[in-house]
Amino acid sequence: MYVILVYDMATERVAKMLKLCRQYLNWIQNSVFEGELSEVKLQELILKARALMNEDHDSLIIFTSRHERWLDKQIIGNEKNSVDNFL
Amino acid sequence: MYVILVYDMATERVAKMLKLCRQYLNWIQNSVFEGELSEVKLQELILKARALMNEDHDSLIIFTSRHERWLDKQIIGNEKNSVDNFL
Repeated sequence: MYVILVYDMATERVAKMLKLCRQYLNWIQNSVFEGELSEVKLQELILKARALMNEDHDSLIIFTSRHERWLDKQIIGNEKNSVDNFL
Repeated sequence: MYVILVYDMATERVAKMLKLCRQYLNWIQNSVFEGELSEVKLQELILKARALMNEDHDSLIIFTSRHERWLDKQIIGNEKNSVDNFL
């Protein structure tokens, strides 16, 4: 399935969440990721993310769509992704 | 159409973008909004957003889906939206 993930983490936990999400998805903006994941892999990611989060303060929003073609994407302004390829 | 909007703005421009987006969409996290918008209203929002942005530094990502039912959403952790209702 196609996944869009956005997190809002306290500064001290951001680096670990970024690292985790990049193992599963493509980084497209500050705290936004997207990509194709199986249900099993998505559940694995959520489990690991929960272990990093303080659920009283941090937040993780995950949108899923059965097919990527059901979603259109426009990027206006600075595209972080083009930099991300070189990291 | 159903819209998910995420921005990444320099601090000095965040407040104006937040205010603009809240006129069109529901705020669901830090810099994330969602909601139903017509194509015309979306183009109007994009036009106004561009006027606020420095496109070399700021970024705006807009996902659209023809039907809300093509998208599932999970929120893990702190739900900002429940607070937003009282603002």
